[in-house]
Formats: sequence, structure tokens, C-alpha cells
Amino acid sequence: MSKRIAAFGEVMMRLQVPGFELLSQANTLHYSFSGTGVNVVSALSHYGHAGYLVSALPANPLGDAAVSYLGKLGISKNYLVRWGQYLGHYFLENGVGPRPSRVTYSNRLESSFNTAPESIYDFAQIAENVDVVHFCGITLAMNDTARTNIGRFAAAVKESGGLVVFDCNYRPSLWGEDGYEKAKPYYEDLLTKADIVMMNEKDALHVLNMQTNKTDRTEQLKELIPAVAEAYSIRVIAGTHRTIHEDQTHSLRGYLYKDKQFTFSNILRFTVHDRIGAGDAFTSGIIHGELEELSPETTVTFATTAGMLKHTTVGDTPMLTDEDIFEAMSSQGGDIRR
Amino acid sequence: MSKRIAAFGEVMMRLQVPGFELLSQANTLHYSFSGTGVNVVSALSHYGHAGYLVSALPANPLGDAAVSYLGKLGISKNYLVRWGQYLGHYFLENGVGPRPSRVTYSNRLESSFNTAPESIYDFAQIAENVDVVHFCGITLAMNDTARTNIGRFAAAVKESGGLVVFDCNYRPSLWGEDGYEKAKPYYEDLLTKADIVMMNEKDALHVLNMQTNKTDRTEQLKELIPAVAEAYSIRVIAGTHRTIHEDQTHSLRGYLYKDKQFTFSNILRFTVHDRIGAGDAFTSGIIHGELEELSPETTVTFATTAGMLKHTTVGDTPMLTDEDIFEAMSSQGGDIRR
Amino acid sequence: MSKRIAAFGEVMMRLQVPGFELLSQANTLHYSFSGTGVNVVSALSHYGHAGYLVSALPANPLGDAAVSYLGKLGISKNYLVRWGQYLGHYFLENGVGPRPSRVTYSNRLESSFNTAPESIYDFAQIAENVDVVHFCGITLAMNDTARTNIGRFAAAVKESGGLVVFDCNYRPSLWGEDGYEKAKPYYEDLLTKADIVMMNEKDALHVLNMQTNKTDRTEQLKELIPAVAEAYSIRVIAGTHRTIHEDQTHSLRGYLYKDKQFTFSNILRFTVHDRIGAGDAFTSGIIHGELEELSPETTVTFATTAGMLKHTTVGDTPMLTDEDIFEAMSSQGGDIRR
Amino acid sequence: MSKRIAAFGEVMMRLQVPGFELLSQANTLHYSFSGTGVNVVSALSHYGHAGYLVSALPANPLGDAAVSYLGKLGISKNYLVRWGQYLGHYFLENGVGPRPSRVTYSNRLESSFNTAPESIYDFAQIAENVDVVHFCGITLAMNDTARTNIGRFAAAVKESGGLVVFDCNYRPSLWGEDGYEKAKPYYEDLLTKADIVMMNEKDALHVLNMQTNKTDRTEQLKELIPAVAEAYSIRVIAGTHRTIHEDQTHSLRGYLYKDKQFTFSNILRFTVHDRIGAGDAFTSGIIHGELEELSPETTVTFATTAGMLKHTTVGDTPMLTDEDIFEAMSSQGGDIRR
Amino acid sequence: MSKRIAAFGEVMMRLQVPGFELLSQANTLHYSFSGTGVNVVSALSHYGHAGYLVSALPANPLGDAAVSYLGKLGISKNYLVRWGQYLGHYFLENGVGPRPSRVTYSNRLESSFNTAPESIYDFAQIAENVDVVHFCGITLAMNDTARTNIGRFAAAVKESGGLVVFDCNYRPSLWGEDGYEKAKPYYEDLLTKADIVMMNEKDALHVLNMQTNKTDRTEQLKELIPAVAEAYSIRVIAGTHRTIHEDQTHSLRGYLYKDKQFTFSNILRFTVHDRIGAGDAFTSGIIHGELEELSPETTVTFATTAGMLKHTTVGDTPMLTDEDIFEAMSSQGGDIRR
Amino acid sequence: MSKRIAAFGEVMMRLQVPGFELLSQANTLHYSFSGTGVNVVSALSHYGHAGYLVSALPANPLGDAAVSYLGKLGISKNYLVRWGQYLGHYFLENGVGPRPSRVTYSNRLESSFNTAPESIYDFAQIAENVDVVHFCGITLAMNDTARTNIGRFAAAVKESGGLVVFDCNYRPSLWGEDGYEKAKPYYEDLLTKADIVMMNEKDALHVLNMQTNKTDRTEQLKELIPAVAEAYSIRVIAGTHRTIHEDQTHSLRGYLYKDKQFTFSNILRFTVHDRIGAGDAFTSGIIHGELEELSPETTVTFATTAGMLKHTTVGDTPMLTDEDIFEAMSSQGGDIRR
Repeated sequence: MSKRIAAFGEVMMRLQVPGFELLSQANTLHYSFSGTGVNVVSALSHYGHAGYLVSALPANPLGDAAVSYLGKLGISKNYLVRWGQYLGHYFLENGVGPRPSRVTYSNRLESSFNTAPESIYDFAQIAENVDVVHFCGITLAMNDTARTNIGRFAAAVKESGGLVVFDCNYRPSLWGEDGYEKAKPYYEDLLTKADIVMMNEKDALHVLNMQTNKTDRTEQLKELIPAVAEAYSIRVIAGTHRTIHEDQTHSLRGYLYKDKQFTFSNILRFTVHDRIGAGDAFTSGIIHGELEELSPETTVTFATTAGMLKHTTVGDTPMLTDEDIFEAMSSQGGDIRR
Repeated sequence: MSKRIAAFGEVMMRLQVPGFELLSQANTLHYSFSGTGVNVVSALSHYGHAGYLVSALPANPLGDAAVSYLGKLGISKNYLVRWGQYLGHYFLENGVGPRPSRVTYSNRLESSFNTAPESIYDFAQIAENVDVVHFCGITLAMNDTARTNIGRFAAAVKESGGLVVFDCNYRPSLWGEDGYEKAKPYYEDLLTKADIVMMNEKDALHVLNMQTNKTDRTEQLKELIPAVAEAYSIRVIAGTHRTIHEDQTHSLRGYLYKDKQFTFSNILRFTVHDRIGAGDAFTSGIIHGELEELSPETTVTFATTAGMLKHTTVGDTPMLTDEDIFEAMSSQGGDIRR
Repeated sequence: MSKRIAAFGEVMMRLQVPGFELLSQANTLHYSFSGTGVNVVSALSHYGHAGYLVSALPANPLGDAAVSYLGKLGISKNYLVRWGQYLGHYFLENGVGPRPSRVTYSNRLESSFNTAPESIYDFAQIAENVDVVHFCGITLAMNDTARTNIGRFAAAVKESGGLVVFDCNYRPSLWGEDGYEKAKPYYEDLLTKADIVMMNEKDALHVLNMQTNKTDRTEQLKELIPAVAEAYSIRVIAGTHRTIHEDQTHSLRGYLYKDKQFTFSNILRFTVHDRIGAGDAFTSGIIHGELEELSPETTVTFATTAGMLKHTTVGDTPMLTDEDIFEAMSSQGGDIRR
Repeated sequence: MSKRIAAFGEVMMRLQVPGFELLSQANTLHYSFSGTGVNVVSALSHYGHAGYLVSALPANPLGDAAVSYLGKLGISKNYLVRWGQYLGHYFLENGVGPRPSRVTYSNRLESSFNTAPESIYDFAQIAENVDVVHFCGITLAMNDTARTNIGRFAAAVKESGGLVVFDCNYRPSLWGEDGYEKAKPYYEDLLTKADIVMMNEKDALHVLNMQTNKTDRTEQLKELIPAVAEAYSIRVIAGTHRTIHEDQTHSLRGYLYKDKQFTFSNILRFTVHDRIGAGDAFTSGIIHGELEELSPETTVTFATTAGMLKHTTVGDTPMLTDEDIFEAMSSQGGDIRR
Repeated sequence: MSKRIAAFGEVMMRLQVPGFELLSQANTLHYSFSGTGVNVVSALSHYGHAGYLVSALPANPLGDAAVSYLGKLGISKNYLVRWGQYLGHYFLENGVGPRPSRVTYSNRLESSFNTAPESIYDFAQIAENVDVVHFCGITLAMNDTARTNIGRFAAAVKESGGLVVFDCNYRPSLWGEDGYEKAKPYYEDLLTKADIVMMNEKDALHVLNMQTNKTDRTEQLKELIPAVAEAYSIRVIAGTHRTIHEDQTHSLRGYLYKDKQFTFSNILRFTVHDRIGAGDAFTSGIIHGELEELSPETTVTFATTAGMLKHTTVGDTPMLTDEDIFEAMSSQGGDIRR
Repeated sequence: MSKRIAAFGEVMMRLQVPGFELLSQANTLHYSFSGTGVNVVSALSHYGHAGYLVSALPANPLGDAAVSYLGKLGISKNYLVRWGQYLGHYFLENGVGPRPSRVTYSNRLESSFNTAPESIYDFAQIAENVDVVHFCGITLAMNDTARTNIGRFAAAVKESGGLVVFDCNYRPSLWGEDGYEKAKPYYEDLLTKADIVMMNEKDALHVLNMQTNKTDRTEQLKELIPAVAEAYSIRVIAGTHRTIHEDQTHSLRGYLYKDKQFTFSNILRFTVHDRIGAGDAFTSGIIHGELEELSPETTVTFATTAGMLKHTTVGDTPMLTDEDIFEAMSSQGGDIRR
């Protein structure tokens, strides 16, 4: 049954050099608009839910372009606020083989979203009109304004009986030196409020500073995640393990921890076309499974398959439907459909 | 020595999303014109023969564009008739890795070719002016009008002493439910008239409803193809076995059955850039070998190499010359020629 | 104050050759999705209203692409039904100077919209949830199915107290021989139900078969439009007179007839970049003025300016905001804003 | 009735910077293949005749690309010879307003066509199989090899009873210093052999060194052209007067001199999109009129309209049909056809 | 004789929507790097001088791309400093007819150039190694850091005996409210140091707050400019008057005031392809004329022609050579050069 | 410490079909300018040295475009001479899998560089102003003019105390029949003058006609290279062994022979995006290591890594910095940097 899902997060403009040229070689950029919240809500909208983004955008042609683009992704503009002057953006140069992709941010902290005061959002009213709200560790890393907003919004959702989803998504470069230490209290606060959490053993070890004497990552996962669920009273925890192989293929294995039980997906191995947004595709699959009350096996397989398929599409944002994903789950793929 | 070769078949407009975007992401399409007959005759034209297409096209800018494009492929417009209003077309979204390519047809059955009455073609006159005519199972699948036209044209070719080539090319989605049963009488009629037939053991098993208790496909082939040749008095039968490997490479092995003897090519393994039209490239190689009276070994190697090289070129239609193919047969490939 | 506005009409895919090449020269097409209803509702959405399209689209990748595109235009997908198999489309080659633009339709009558039975729409429920519904003479020209649907929907709107807008938009090529005669009863029926009508003296003369002995078109307008308003009890009638000048510039003058009074805009003269959709931009301006209860002078100037500005933007569909239009009304335009 | 028409001339590769950038700004080129003979024969092929080019091309990928392109233009490859190593080409930067277009030739004199010996062509056999052959002053300017080939071919055509068309097309930069003097004997030789000649009063004054004391160009034309026709026994002479206006529009007036009578077209004024090849479009119209035995009035109007319409299409080569041209002759043009 | 010329100014990244789409319609941007100093120095480099830019750029891929681009423009990187994190940029949507072009700045004040302290530049050393330095009113408008840097650098140039060029270039939007008042002292300081000044009567009236009772702008110019030259001991003052005509053409007239004499160019009228940077082209012409000791007539004609031709090229930055400009001065332009 | 490095060599225009189409399929080319000298000097310029090219270019728009492009690559134009009429160019069609890339040269021997007389260069003056000059076997293969120029320039460098670098780079197709025999004396002459030589055992065996009874290429290298160093008194010899694997990946191993010691890099294996210019990237790394007096281990690893990374960038010319290369040396690569 179709639900109403909102995400709270920044819309970033992605300015990508086409092909494999460097910025100093090319003269053209492709642009699109994305963000963790955008990606998750777009995916859920393609699975049949009503998707909303709660965010702030400048009242200028860049803001207009972002709103149009979100419409194209199937996201409602009802909770988008026009405020401030800047839209965060980044330049992306594609890597190939041993040369990694390169991201250059423009001054992100001055963006409309990251400077918007709490007063411009009516969190209580939004919370009453949606079933689920998604938050992300990237927003938490921005500044105090953003952190305050997240805290207030999450509290409003709890109050109105909605589900809080939190994707840990710790980015070392955003938190800077002593980042884990700085981040810990904010993460703990949100974990306490969250119903569904996306993380794996690394977040437990580093952000939450938990200990284990296991060395295998699956062993670590099995020891630490139940402890996290227990400590913060979290209903569902899920995440993935990625392996990058020598032949440039990747593999993904998803897990879901719920009712004190781990469920693992098969290991899926595949070639990679565009890996940005794969984690968000996985998250959207877990949320969809929970909302549709699918079995843990189906949920984690659906989510991991959604993650895999994201690697085969262009851009950060999942645009395949649930039918596409179920079809990929039941087929061997690879040949022309005609 | 250069021969005159005609094909009877539909020209389709291929509208392809560039790169790997979905139709709901992109805003640009590349277009070209192709079809089984187009592909076979273009290839033979690049091997030095005079190539003709017998087809119907609308008298509008789309028909004009198709005629120009056929000229670019080296195909004579002498037997193209302008009639009706529509040109069949399909939209193509490229897949990658586990996401398959996707084809969406526009209403094909109303096309000029599929609604053209026999009376607009002068089959007898054309048959007298060409040496070979190529027919294809896709046309047979369309409707009664198309089937009647094929039957009359093939009869005219036999009468005037030309060679009839028939590519079985059974497409389940076109024949629908109980398709094999519906198709069988039409296939049998054309097999009876054909001199050269493209097929493999699957066509014998499913379309002709033949039986074997072998399970290996090469074993099945060796048992069934001689029986088909015998039953329908066919001079040459040829085809390929394709294997899709886990690393996304494909391999092809061609066979030729003639004078009660099988000749097999080596197994060629290669990466795939654009696989549509590979079967037509193989067919054109077999026809070229037969017309040039090459040895069976050379013919089947030439045809399989042509099929392999088609996977390395853009679009459905082979545009390499016989020299290019002979060069690939004798080289190891892969480095820059300068 | 923001209103809810729906249009009932077909979504067409526009496949346009970029630049000035012919289809037989180029190999690339730009595509977009438009239609009279799409254009009007998109414009009103950019003026701050909630816009809906009531239409049928195939459940395939072309339908998905259309839905995404409508989202980009700011149009809600709530009343889009998936049904049938085909999306109407047309190919557009741009003219220049003495060479006119050229449109080639693909088989439009088989489209999802034009074959959709009334039963797939819940007209009563939609009518209750919107304030205005827009209908267009192009839909009326399609076939009996479309005409029946229009009639039922317009009746539902009247019943639920909404406003009916009817754009006469008579297209001779769609109605064929004796077109005026065939069209008249359907036009009369809708005029009777309509509150706001877009037309000019030509529609009165030809479609409604009215008489005048005036020869100047403004004189004819002033005689015939009041008679139409009287005969069919129409609250507001509006339209434009276009003049094409020798230097390829165009000029537009809008009129509004209401409360037995004519109001004319200034004559606006301008260069033309893309003229398709200019009438729809004018219509949207009239509807906006009426909904916002602007003065007749402001309404007709706003609408005519919106029509003029549409000629300066790319594609059929207006995407400028009401601020942009008011700014153009008060400025001399032309220089860089920096 | 459809005729067989050949042209003898070079195929040049045109490498054009898209838009208005300089070669030192851009990084992309559009390429096409053209030449006076190519243009004339392509136009006649679009009017329903069979068009042939007699030329030499290298046996390499550039030669292959030229052959494909000629096929797209509707030109038969039967008389194309593969010989030599180079294809002439030039780079084109588009001008705008007061900045003129700029052409940079690559070393043209080493091209296959300009170095091909007479022995590679079977002029006698070709002459017997065509009705008309077109020659051009540009070829005459190249070198002795080219001049010898022209002379022999024209003689063969006369012998087999075909029509010789000669377009004077004097290019000062190609003949260099004392060019008129050098050119005169070759021009006189071809004029003697020609049945239809394209020229105007300037060619008479400068190349043929004739005298007049008139100063108005129409007066000069009326005095000199009859003298030329008389002196060299030419059946038909035709040409145009072009005027470039201050607002960047051009106007063209065509004339036809035949049976001691001048016929002039109306003066056509129009905006210019791409002016290269306009003279060839005019020439093709005159040839078509003569072959179809149209009246002088129709012929010169058709030719001048063809010349005008060429300015509205992309590339050097006319691709409109005779129907398009007749339609433009009878219409006012300018609006969308839908 | 070739001189060494430096400019002190910001490098901006221009992100331009191709064609006439809005940011909310397109998905591609063309990028380039420019700025008043960049434009002036690039032009002078194309006239044969050695051109340097004194500026600060971030040490990241955007900075690298800017350096490459400046190299393409012929500008030496010797005095470019890597410092700070951001490169200023703006988005440009092209207008057409009554719809103006639209510029959206990204947060410019945080750019490397606008935050770079004086200490990162060795002004004294640079001043000794160049003959001329160009400054611009846009830099003056930025912030105190930029204003301090300008003042110090100009003083160093005076001290080492170089020429100071100052382009007033007052931009109201940058100075904000009471801008003229704020700007006046900084303008006066630079005028005192300047040898060559670009301005017209408006700068005298508004920025310098001078008075006149003339109303015609040429009359005002003739009264005010001599007074400015006198008051601030300026050797050469030059500028243009632009008129925008109803048919979208522009006209320019340049003036040069030197040795108490006015010299005016002819009025040049032309169509406009890209008007950004036209003033900088004019400036570069004046500087070139002064450095080459051309007559005032030649200098002002050269500069105005350079300004006109800039309107015909793509991008902000002049890339034509002095030969191109002298050729345009002596020709009528407009036809193909081949 | 930054050095001044010149290369003596031709600038070629590379006209590349985008993607994988053939010249007979596409209509667009990307162009760039490169050459062995260009590549080496551009790389060294990106490592912080001052790079110069000594070459001849035509004084036309192609020459201008080449100069701009060299500026973009960071190469000084101080020693570029404008002379002659033609710029060498070649057309490149990309291969894929078993279909090799294809290069078609335009008539290269008439180029400005290959016909420029010694007198246009002031070799003595240049030699005095640079620290290192790079020469290449490709230039040696051109004609006597080029060979004379190389000889004189190398002698001047020796005289002024600069370093001579010689890249053997023997190209069989350029020397033609009995090529090794023809080439030997010229190679020997340059080897005698060279300080740093790029070669491997094949050059010793074939060009220098040395003998070995080893069969393994590393064994051959170890025997022959010391003999070459001895025979011609060469300070440093370096080169690579490349292996092309079945899965289309390549591997490279670099060696450096200096002070009678061999140093080998690790074997690096990688996927290939664009392999042209990889040898030049290696050469630039060896030169950089020598100039910076890095250890042999660091030098050969840096050079081999530079060679590997060149395969991951677009175009012939290395544009990565020394930091990029050191970073790749110390990392595992492959993931996004954000």
C-alpha cells in the first residue's frame, strides 16, 4: 500500500565532465540534481509511494532548475522552501581503471539548505502529513544549524508517530580532524530516535567507538550490530558489504538485522557503470520492504538488487520501478528484450 | 564475381537513447534505419555485390530519410516502392551488465511494408533481374499480407532460376501463443523453396517439431540438420551457436552443412559493443562464400568472423568490407594500425 | 490565490531534428512531450497553481518518460491513467526563411488517449477535486471515443460547479473534408457548457457558420463575438490576432470580451524563436487573470505578453513564471541582466 | 521523363566548425562531402533522374566515407574509381555579420582526383551510357592533368550525342596571377563543345575579354550573352544576379537565354542560412527544365527558386525534391505545416 | 614593437546553457573562463604582445582548468598564484528578442581572488617586469582586500615607470545602495594614478558627481571628459557610445581624447551574436594603438572595429588578430573567403 | 628545481571519430593537436618545468588553432615558427575488441615542419636558452630536410652544454622497405650525441643490427643495452616491455640502465582507455627523474606509473601533475575521492 515518505536533506547540483576528460581538457558539463534524500525519495516514488523532499532552495534560476528536476524524478515540491541565495554544487571528473574519479566541491556551507534557520520549516505540520522521514549523516556533518534542524524534525516525527530512518553515512572529509569524536554525540542522539538504521560494523567501531576482537568483517558485524540495536532500541538495522575485485567488477552483499535475526542476501557480482547513489538505492529497498511488510529475505534481496542495478544506470538517482527490480531478481539478465 | 542480390523485408527506424540513460532520463535520440534484409544486403554490397531492397516506404519525410540512409549503406533504391503512410519504428534503451537492453515498438503492423498489397510489387520482373533473394522469418510473422507476398515472391524467384535464401529467425514474441504451431506450415513452405537456409537445432525442434534424444546442442545439431536438409531438399544449411560468458564476453561458433558434410569454424571469443545484427552479418558471409564458391572452411570462417566483427561496430548494419574480414581472419588484432 | 486546474488532452511526443537539417540529413532527434492541455497546465503551475493532466498513457518506457517529463513541467501525475499501448508522436523539421517547418505524424489515432474508453477515468471524482478544467478542439477532432469522453467530463465539471474552459483551436487537416459541418454540433455542445472560450472571428464564421458583411477582421470580431457570447451564454471570450511581417517578425494583439465589453492589448511585435505553443501561453494568461480576478486590461496584457514570450523560449511548453511576465510588461527588455 | 546525368568533378571533404567558433576555440568538426558536380547531380537525383559522378577517390577509409555519403545523396557509385592516396579537404569557420566565413584548404593539388591520369577512366563507355555530362570551371583551374581529362571526356560526350553542360565558375584565387589570360583558351575550348552554359556578363568581360560600354550589369548582360551564344554556338545560357542587402538578406534574379530570347525570373529576396552551393542548385534547375522541356518561364523560375531554397538548407548539397520547389513557387511560405 | 602587458583581475568561470533553453530545461553547460583582465590581455596577446594575468586561483582541478584555458588564450601563467579554495563562477542563460539574458552568480566574494591577501603577490617585482598594467572598476567593487591590492599594485607600477590603464566599468549591482558615493574615493585615487582611462560621460556624471546642463550625450561628453583629464592629469581617455536599434542591431561609436583633442570613429552598425566582452575588446584596441604609436584616427577606428568584431565571436574573450581587424577596417565584409 | 626543456618535432592534428563509429558512419570529428615532442614537453610542463616546442606551423587558422592548443597544454610558443602552408593531420577511428583502431594520414610530407629549411630556426640561440632537448625517431624517418635539421640542432645542444634526449621510436611503415638499413646511420649519429636514450632490445636487434643468442626478451635486454650504452657512450637508457593480455588489459614494466646498473619497476596491469602517447608519458617521467635527481627506483616507478596513467586519460598528451602520479604510486586507486 502506498505510503507518504519525506526526506530531509540538501539538493546538490552535480556538474559532470562527460566521458573521461579532465576539467582542464573538456568544455562541456552535464548537470543534474541529487542528494541522499533526493535519491531515496525518488526511488520510493518509483515504487509507488508519494515522495516529498523537505529542503531549502534559492529563489533564482538554479533553484527553479532544481525544482523542475525533482519533478522529473517524481518528487513532490510541496515541502520545498525558497530561501537564501546559493545552491551547493560539485564538479565530477570520471576516473577509469587506476585513475580515481575526482570531486571538487564549490563552497557548500553557504548553501540555502545549510544556512536555513529552523523557523522556515513547519516541521510539526509536515510530520503529521507523512508516514516516514529519512535523515542522513551527511546533513549531520554540515554545521550546527543543520544539526539543530535535524534534531527538531526527528523529534517532531517521533511525536506524531511516524517512522524515523537514519542512514549513518559517515564521511571523514566532512568532519575533519577528530571527526569521530565530534560526531559521536549527534549520532547517538539520532540513533535513539531512529526506527530503521543504515550502517555496518565500521560505523559501530569508529563513530560509536565500540570494541571487538574479531578481525573478519562479517564476524565483527554479527557481534556489533545486535549490540547497537540493543543499546539504542532500534527496530531494524541494515547495510552492505562491498568488495572491489581486480577485474574492476564489484560485489555486494546486503544484510538485515531485525527481531534479533540476521538475514543476508546472496553475493551479487557485476560490472559498474556509475556507482554514486548505490547506497541510497539499497536504503530505499529496505524502506520499501518494511513498508510493504515483505519477508526479511525478500526485503534484503530486493534492496541489494536495487543497489546492484543502480550501478547500471546513469546519475545518482534510482529511476527503476519495483517491477524492474523484481524482474532482475528472477532473471539471469543480459540479453536484449524484444 | 559480383552478383545481384535482393532482400525482401521491412525497413525499421531505430530510435536509440545514446549512452546508458533511460528514455525517462535523456532528451536525445540517435536514429538509423535497419532490418534483417537491409543488414544482409548492405553487407553484401560492401563485399562488392550489387545490393537491392524490395520494400515499401511511405511517401513522406520519414520515407525520404530511409531512402537516403539505404543509399549510405550502399543499397540501390530501384525496387523501393512508395506506398502507405507509416514507417515502423522502435525505441532502444541500452542495457549494461545485469540490466538488459529494452526495446519498445511503435505500432508496427500499420506500417507501409506490412500493409502493402502484392499488386504494388512487380515480383516477376525483379526476380528476372537478380541472382539471389533473401527472405526472413520476421516478415513471415507479421500478417497474412506479408506472408502472401513472401510466398509469391519466392515462387517467382524459383521460376526465374534465382537462389532463395531463407533465414528462419523465429521470434516468439511476434507469433504469440501457440506460435510454433501457427508458424510451422509457412516455414515448411519456404523451406521447400529455399536453396540456402539459416537455422540451428532449436528451429528444427520447436518450429518443425522434430524429435531427438540427444541433449548436447552440437549432438542435436548433427542429428537434426541433415534430416532437415533431406526432408526439404536444401542445398546449404548454416548457423551459429552463441555462448554468453560470465565476464560479459560472448563466443560464437559457426557451422555449415553442405554435400552431407558439416564444417565448423573455430570458437571465437570477444567483447561485445553492439550485438544487434550479428546474425545478419553471419548470413551475409555464408551467401558471399557460396556466391564466390569459396571452400566450406573459408566460407564458415569468413561468416563467423563477420559475425564477430559486427559486435564491434555501431548500429545493426555491417559496413566492413571483405578485405577487413579477411584481415581479421589472418591477424591477432587489437593494436593501432599506423 | 492558488487554484487547482486540470486539462483533458493528449500527451504527444515531439521528435525534433536539431538545427535546420532535414530528416534525411541528420541522425539525431531531440524529444519532449507536449500537447495543448500540457502547455496550459504547465504555465498555470508556473504561476503558482496546482496543475493536473487528465490523460491516458501506455504502461511502457515511453509512458514512463512522459510522466517524468510532465513532472519536470510541474504537472501532477495523480490523474494520469496507464492504458493501451501507444503514445502519439510527431517528427518536426525546422524551416527557415522561405522554407516552412514540416510536421510528420506517426499513427496518432491508435494512441492510448484516443482509444481509451470513458470507463478508465473517474470524471466525477476528478471534477470534485479541481476548480477549472480545460478542453481543446484538437481532442474534439480525434474520434467518437474522444468526443464522448470530452462531453461526459465537461458535464461532470458543470455539475460539480467548476469552470469549463474551451479552446476552439480548429485544425482543418484533422477534420478532413466537410470538416466545418462535421465539427459544428460538437463545438456547439461544448460552447454551451463553457465559461471561458478561446476563439476569434474565424471560428465564428467557419465553424459556427455565422455571417457578417464586414471585411476588416477587427470589425468582424466586434460584430461576431458578442453574438457568440449571447448565443451560448459564455462569460468570457478571448483570443488573438497575429500578423506575420515581411522581415520575419510577428505581431500579436490580444482581446478579451467580458461583461459586454471588449478590451484590447497593445500590438506587440517581436522576433520568433519557436512559435509552437504561443496560443496555449495566451490561454493560460487569460485563465490566470480570471482566477486571480485581475482587471481586464491587466489580464489581456498579461496573456498577450505570455504569448509573446513563449516565442522566445524553446519547446511548446511555457516555463516562465508570472514574475517573469510582469517584469517583461514593465520593462523594455533586451540587455543582459547582471 | 527520367534521364541519366553524370558530372565530372572532385569530391571535397568539408570540415566545418559548428556554430560560430573559430578553429582555435572549438574542438569538434562536422564533416560532409561535396563539390560542384556532387551538388548538381544530387539535386537532379532528387528530381527523379539517375545521377552519376565520374571521379577518383582514394582506396582508404576517407574514400569509403565519401562513397557512403554520395549514396546518401542519391548518387550512383558506378563510375567512381579508386585511385591515389588523398582526398581534398577544407576547413570552414562560419562568419556572422561583419565577420566573413573563412575557408582553409588542405593541400588540394595532391588529391586523387587532381592527379588521376586519363587512363583510369573509360570516358567513351561512360559517355554512351549517360544523357548529359556536367563540367565546371573549378576543375579547369586545377592542373594540366585535370584539363586534359575534361577535354577528352567532353569530346567523348559530343561524339556519343550527349549534352555537355559547362558552368564557368571562374575562381580568381585558383588561377593566380594573370589568371584570365591563362584560363581563356581552356574556357573557349569547352564553350565550343557546350550545349548549356552557366555564366553571366562578368565571365564574358573578364575571362573572354569581351568589351562593352554599358555600365549597368543587366545592360551588359543583354549585350554580351547573345554575342557569346553566337560566337560559340551555345544553345542555352543561364545565370543569376545576386544582391546583398544591408540587413543581411540577399536577393537573386535568374535569367535564361535561348532561341535568341531572354527570360528573367522575379527578384526573390530571402534570409540566408547557408549560401554555399546555391549556384549549383540554380544550375540543376536549369538542366531539369531543359530535360523536362519546361517553358523558359517555368525553367528559370524553378531554377531561381531552387537557388533560393538552397540558402535555407544545411550543407552544400541540395536535397529538396522538385515537389518541394514547385510548392515553394506557388506558396507564400513561412508557417508551420501540420 | 611587442610590449609586456599585465592585467590584475579575477578569473570567472562562465557556465552557459547552450542555445536558448532555460536552466530548468537543459542538462548541459558549456564552460569557459574569462574576466575583464583576461579579455584585455588575451586580445593584446593576439596582437603580438606578451600578455600576463596577475591573479589568484585555487589549487584544485578548477584552478588547473582555468590555467589551461588562459594558456589557450595566449596568456602567460607566470604571475598566477595558487591560493584559497574557490573560483568565482556564474550561470548564463541566453535571451532572445524581448527576453533578456540572465546571469546567476555563485557566491563570488569567497573566491580565491577576492580573499587573497596582498602578501601573496610580489607587486614590485611584477611591476618591474612589465610595461603596462590594466585595472578595472569591477575589482574595485569587490571588497576592501581587493581595493587594497589594486592601490598597492598601481602604486608599484607608477614607481617603476610603467603605464597604468584604468577601465571605470561601474556596475551598480555590485556597489549596492549609495554605490556612487561609496565608489567615488576609490575611483578618484585610481584616476590620479592612471595614464589611460576608459570611461564616458555617465561615469563623470554619476561616479565623479560632475555637473552639466547639456542633455545630448555627445555634448555632455565633450564638456566633461576634458575636465576629467584636466582634474586627474590623465594622458588618454577613451570610450564608446552604444545604440540598440529596434531591429536588434547595435551601433557603436568610439572616441579618443588626447592632447586636448577629440577623435571619433565612424558609427558602426551590426548584428550581435555575443555581446559580452565588447568593451574589453575596445579597451585592448586603444592600448594597442597607444603602444604602437598609431595615429588617433587609426587607434580609435581599430578599437571600435575590434569592439564590433567581438560581437561576432563566441565567448567573452577576443581571439582575432590585428590583421583580422585591419582587414575588417578596409573591407566591406560579408562574403565567403575562399 | 624547475628546468627549461625543449622538444623538436612535428605538431599533428588528430581528427578522431567519437565513439566507435567508422568514418563512413559518423558526421562529427573531435580534433586535438599532438606529437611526440608535444606530449613529452606538455607532461614536463605539468611537472613544473618550463616547456618549449621547436617547430614550424603554417600562418593560417590551422596554425593558429595549434598554437592555442599548445598553450592549453602549458607549452610556450616562443620557439614556434610560422612557415609553409600545411599542417600534418590524421584521421583516427577507434577500434574495439578484435577490431583494431585505424589511422589514415593526410599527405604528411608536405607539412610545414617537414619542408621547413634549417634557416628558419636559430638553433644556436635556442640551445643556449634551454637545458634539455628531446628528439624522436619519427622525425628522423621523415625526409632529408628533417634529418638535417635534427643533426644540426643536436650538435648545437651538445655545443652549448645541454642534455640530448633521443627516443628511438622506430616506425616500420615510415621507413618503408629496407628501412632498418636506411635508418641505421642516422640512428647511430644521434645515439652518439645523446645523453638519455629511450629504446629496448628490439631497437638494438633490428635498427642497430646487433646479435644475441638469448630468446627471452628480458635476457636480450640485459645483454644488449649495456653494449649499446658502451658503444655510444650513453649515460642513461630506459624503456618498457608491454604485454597485452587476453582480457584486453595491458601490463607495463619499465627499466632504467644507468651507471652499469639495471633498475626495473614492478609490473603494472591495467585496463586501457586511450593508449596513444603512453610511451611519451614514460619518457617524460624518466627525464623528470633525471632532472630532479631522483633515485633510479623512484625514477623508473614514476615513469612507468606515468605511462600507466596515460592509458586512463583522453588524448595523446599527458596532463596529470607529478602530485597525481606520486599519489597513484602510493595508493591502491579505484574509488571516488570526495
